[in-house]
Amino acid sequence: MINVGVIAASGYAGAETVRLLLNHPQVNLNYITSRRFVGKYFHTIYPNLRKISKLKFEELDIEEAAEKCDVTFLATPHGISQEFVPTLMERGLKIIDQSADFRLNNKHKYKEYYKKEHGAAYLFKEAVYGLPELHRYEIRNANLIAVAGCHASSAIYGLYPLISEGLIDIEKIIIDSKTGSSGSGATSNKSTHHPVRANSIRPYKMTNHRHTAEIEQELALFKNKNEYENNVVRVGFSAHAVNLVRGILSTIHIFYNENREIDNKKLFRIYRKYYENEPFLRLINQNTGVFRLPDPKIVKGTNYCDIGFELDPHMNRIVVLSALDNLIKGTAGNAVQCLNIMNGLDEKTALEFPGFFPL
Amino acid sequence: MINVGVIAASGYAGAETVRLLLNHPQVNLNYITSRRFVGKYFHTIYPNLRKISKLKFEELDIEEAAEKCDVTFLATPHGISQEFVPTLMERGLKIIDQSADFRLNNKHKYKEYYKKEHGAAYLFKEAVYGLPELHRYEIRNANLIAVAGCHASSAIYGLYPLISEGLIDIEKIIIDSKTGSSGSGATSNKSTHHPVRANSIRPYKMTNHRHTAEIEQELALFKNKNEYENNVVRVGFSAHAVNLVRGILSTIHIFYNENREIDNKKLFRIYRKYYENEPFLRLINQNTGVFRLPDPKIVKGTNYCDIGFELDPHMNRIVVLSALDNLIKGTAGNAVQCLNIMNGLDEKTALEFPGFFPL
Amino acid sequence: MINVGVIAASGYAGAETVRLLLNHPQVNLNYITSRRFVGKYFHTIYPNLRKISKLKFEELDIEEAAEKCDVTFLATPHGISQEFVPTLMERGLKIIDQSADFRLNNKHKYKEYYKKEHGAAYLFKEAVYGLPELHRYEIRNANLIAVAGCHASSAIYGLYPLISEGLIDIEKIIIDSKTGSSGSGATSNKSTHHPVRANSIRPYKMTNHRHTAEIEQELALFKNKNEYENNVVRVGFSAHAVNLVRGILSTIHIFYNENREIDNKKLFRIYRKYYENEPFLRLINQNTGVFRLPDPKIVKGTNYCDIGFELDPHMNRIVVLSALDNLIKGTAGNAVQCLNIMNGLDEKTALEFPGFFPL
Amino acid sequence: MINVGVIAASGYAGAETVRLLLNHPQVNLNYITSRRFVGKYFHTIYPNLRKISKLKFEELDIEEAAEKCDVTFLATPHGISQEFVPTLMERGLKIIDQSADFRLNNKHKYKEYYKKEHGAAYLFKEAVYGLPELHRYEIRNANLIAVAGCHASSAIYGLYPLISEGLIDIEKIIIDSKTGSSGSGATSNKSTHHPVRANSIRPYKMTNHRHTAEIEQELALFKNKNEYENNVVRVGFSAHAVNLVRGILSTIHIFYNENREIDNKKLFRIYRKYYENEPFLRLINQNTGVFRLPDPKIVKGTNYCDIGFELDPHMNRIVVLSALDNLIKGTAGNAVQCLNIMNGLDEKTALEFPGFFPL
Repeated sequence: MINVGVIAASGYAGAETVRLLLNHPQVNLNYITSRRFVGKYFHTIYPNLRKISKLKFEELDIEEAAEKCDVTFLATPHGISQEFVPTLMERGLKIIDQSADFRLNNKHKYKEYYKKEHGAAYLFKEAVYGLPELHRYEIRNANLIAVAGCHASSAIYGLYPLISEGLIDIEKIIIDSKTGSSGSGATSNKSTHHPVRANSIRPYKMTNHRHTAEIEQELALFKNKNEYENNVVRVGFSAHAVNLVRGILSTIHIFYNENREIDNKKLFRIYRKYYENEPFLRLINQNTGVFRLPDPKIVKGTNYCDIGFELDPHMNRIVVLSALDNLIKGTAGNAVQCLNIMNGLDEKTALEFPGFFPL
Repeated sequence: MINVGVIAASGYAGAETVRLLLNHPQVNLNYITSRRFVGKYFHTIYPNLRKISKLKFEELDIEEAAEKCDVTFLATPHGISQEFVPTLMERGLKIIDQSADFRLNNKHKYKEYYKKEHGAAYLFKEAVYGLPELHRYEIRNANLIAVAGCHASSAIYGLYPLISEGLIDIEKIIIDSKTGSSGSGATSNKSTHHPVRANSIRPYKMTNHRHTAEIEQELALFKNKNEYENNVVRVGFSAHAVNLVRGILSTIHIFYNENREIDNKKLFRIYRKYYENEPFLRLINQNTGVFRLPDPKIVKGTNYCDIGFELDPHMNRIVVLSALDNLIKGTAGNAVQCLNIMNGLDEKTALEFPGFFPL
Repeated sequence: MINVGVIAASGYAGAETVRLLLNHPQVNLNYITSRRFVGKYFHTIYPNLRKISKLKFEELDIEEAAEKCDVTFLATPHGISQEFVPTLMERGLKIIDQSADFRLNNKHKYKEYYKKEHGAAYLFKEAVYGLPELHRYEIRNANLIAVAGCHASSAIYGLYPLISEGLIDIEKIIIDSKTGSSGSGATSNKSTHHPVRANSIRPYKMTNHRHTAEIEQELALFKNKNEYENNVVRVGFSAHAVNLVRGILSTIHIFYNENREIDNKKLFRIYRKYYENEPFLRLINQNTGVFRLPDPKIVKGTNYCDIGFELDPHMNRIVVLSALDNLIKGTAGNAVQCLNIMNGLDEKTALEFPGFFPL
Repeated sequence: MINVGVIAASGYAGAETVRLLLNHPQVNLNYITSRRFVGKYFHTIYPNLRKISKLKFEELDIEEAAEKCDVTFLATPHGISQEFVPTLMERGLKIIDQSADFRLNNKHKYKEYYKKEHGAAYLFKEAVYGLPELHRYEIRNANLIAVAGCHASSAIYGLYPLISEGLIDIEKIIIDSKTGSSGSGATSNKSTHHPVRANSIRPYKMTNHRHTAEIEQELALFKNKNEYENNVVRVGFSAHAVNLVRGILSTIHIFYNENREIDNKKLFRIYRKYYENEPFLRLINQNTGVFRLPDPKIVKGTNYCDIGFELDPHMNRIVVLSALDNLIKGTAGNAVQCLNIMNGLDEKTALEFPGFFPL
């Protein structure tokens, strides 16, 4: 059994991690913390766990964490985990950090996007970007995982095969992302007040979204070196708040050079090459019915990311669609998948829930 | 392994049964039928099962069913299963019928509410009402289970302890029920058109709802004979369509005789007496937080029914709240729970999914 | 022109009042106040008014109000208006108070339901309950109107004709009310956080709801004295938060004595007698189509209250349905209708907007 | 008074036209037709009009239309109006066609996008594209107006000033559009079934959307001839169905040449130049609060189109946001605005409703 703790377990990402781990046959979840809810039962805050869990929130204590846990999940807000990850690692704990603190491997980029100096940049070289399908081998031996951002995961899953094959213009990538309200976290504010937030399609972050940095970093890493020698990857990322609680759809508009011979068959072949054996990435290719392309409705509650595309010869465009549950495949699910990989377990353990239809 | 089939598996109740059975370790689901979708993969209609199931819909064939299955679930529309249940039973199959055909044990009541003569009323004496917590012992040896209606389940779970204890006026019970759109089935019509149905609180069946009959039948069966010697149970059942896909909330307004000494402690004691050891019935008793009383939001996707109450001495009223997922605890989940009981398995098998929060 | 002010115009009820008054041809709206938003344009808080209104929030100043206004609407939270209504009235202002402060005419009842001593109970005898259809004549000459509560309006419209005719049991009236999130006001809290509040049917106030008091007071006033000599009116009022922003549906379950000869025709005759000539009360009596009974979806954005019923001889029950927009017919619309009556204007002025379908 | 008829008034666009016209002081609406509902009251299908309108649907009869009407609105499905517009025009009627039949001015383009030969292409030269702000002068004298498509209106309003100024790359315009379910019309089908459609973000038409043709045609017409001599306008238009009934948000991603000196001030100056005096186009420029950019929530129920933008120097991108109500500014509202212009009336007549907040 792997002894596991979740720090800051009262937020949405932390709580989903708890829910998944409670159902994990090789995990002993024995330590969950929350500053606000010390001493309270987890199920009083997450009532879906009533009669299921008797876990209580504790105060964070590094010594206790080190004693009780082999692996610790961090679900702290951005900027916090860099403060105590060094100490936790010194005690020999493996860390799966769901915040953004260790996603970027460049302290200048970090400062550009997060507007402060990083407190533990020397750990960047140890941190592995926690997108299991792209970094499986590094994850296996990692001591510090930085779980990918939810929008970023969705975008990278959509783009990675095309960029690896060197097929597309990498300086003019548009990612138009739509997300539910759970992405803004468990703390209420005036923009999440139900009468305000309901029935919206609110363009909330059209430019300078922080996930831009991690998307560009990862895509640059995997871009086809032969095709793109001198080019930098540039994505125009824009995020909208839609009338849902869970789910992200990224609509990715890509241009290709008209001299390229691109057709549907070729695109399918490429995506299949990369994703066919991936347990949680599904290529959607249905000619009939209502759900011919990815829709977050279908993956809600699951660790699946659905990917599809359409070719638009009218303007040498490919539209790639990528749908996932922001709290699962976008955060907690990928975190648990990383845990499985790190521990040599079946990667699918505790993650096979198929979701509901209709919902 | 139990060999199982699902007839009419393309409707919402049938499909949920398929989803649950696919995850059941002691079940071999090897036969699903649908008239409309013969030859199609299940996952083309229920896209949440993509990459998970390779099942195909077949044409219903009694011989084949008899050969392949030990137990058959029927998810046919009301009025259909009575046509072939007799034949299926003659072939030795055990039946778990999710339609209303064998819920009532009185052919006159059947005709009154369903407006036609029943085609196999001689089987009424064999049929067991499929509400696991109330009929556990009969279910164990039953060959024909009539799974309880979704509204009826919700109402009966709320009322059963109070009526068993003889505490309340049983001639003036008001059940004000609110349900999502999935209850109207998988076939579209003008009232389920999204622009019409969305954002509604539509009072759709204020009187004469068919579930009235089964609620009254069951409550009469369990009423305290000492207290209610000559009384008939009468419920005023009214159903509303609310702005949700899944979930039922029944608000049950009950009157008690003012001479009765009733207080909160006594009511809790009673509910605990009946439900404390029930794995899927939860008594909600939270003094703080947002979810102090049952809300279908919390049980969506699960086999739980949450039950709570408030006492209103102002007019000698008890308000009982009962929340469940109409497609799971209201249909497919209870059906699988019956299967587990019939086969001597742990009743909770394949039914322990805790649901999501938020969703 | 009537010079009008709205105090506390930044809340939802106040803002709807502003919107309606801006479109009123006989009104000069020249004074709106808000503590939080002094100096800000109204349209920065209510962006639907962009390019339409140049009004700015001011600090409340009694002298200025007295100077600028003939009539003042108060949209303050409960418990506040009693502090300055006396002063405003001394300056000769007419008051239309949308809070609960002057709805009850009995200080003991006030204390029972609002848990404090009333600060200006001597004004109760001057206050007129602002439900235009029931108090038209008193409103005409009133100096202080206490606009009816939103749930209360809906309930009273449904019950008033039957009680006036002496037809029903007035000690066992059940009002099961469903409301959108706008009823909880413009200030966010943890229960209105979108991920928490969305997709709920939350039973939020099953007993002791404050509107109980005003409903009972009004119904007692209008009850048929011949039929109910010694009886007190008792309503069991329960309120649910449903998955909507606007709208209330009250489902009212009433019992009648089985010796009464009651049929549909008789009930229609009664409702027509009371409501036929009311411009904003509509009796819904449609045998076909989707919307056969009232649904808040249909009256959203309007000053209409739709009323319908079904007879349930099974248990001598009548189910009355009453639907309105909580912020309009439930508050701001009735307030403006009162203004019209007080000033001898066409009662419908500024209130005839028909709403949208679909929405 | 202008005598007006609405043909095919039972669909959503036709019905909104009826609602608007009923409130138009210079219009006498005396003829509405529907094949399916001949003889029925309009309010039995559109229950928001109960107690407000006594109009009945009639069978379409060209003679009667010609006799009763000066102007006829057509709300027929695409492909139908071309059959009888010629006859109606011969009788001297002015036509405001809300279908797509006369929007394109090129029969090859029509065939390419609508997959059939046009039946009355000789009328193309008479038809005026019914986007009031761009074609005010032609509309004044037109006999045949082809009201712009809803997505197209939204996109063109967003792009027109930038293209007129010659500021942007016109071969790489991405329009990512999000729309509610009312856009799919009043007839139910399996994709609009509430349990299927609710809670979706469904990419329903990623490429080859018919509005592409009209957007490109109009933008080419207004593009700055000095800047774009040889260029063709190419837009990559993609439409998503989101979890709403009404509203469109178009997120338009545009690239500009890095040598251009573009900043926020310049962009504001340009939009103001074109839209400052437009009564129904609002430039959204708010630095605080929740609604800093256009959101369809704010314009629902109104004839406003809200427009905003953000500059993204990171990749020489401008993101333009354009929000409108698809049934009003996207169809019926613009149609009525055209009627006003054609008849020399104040353009705003019957169109000034400000919408609701919250809703």
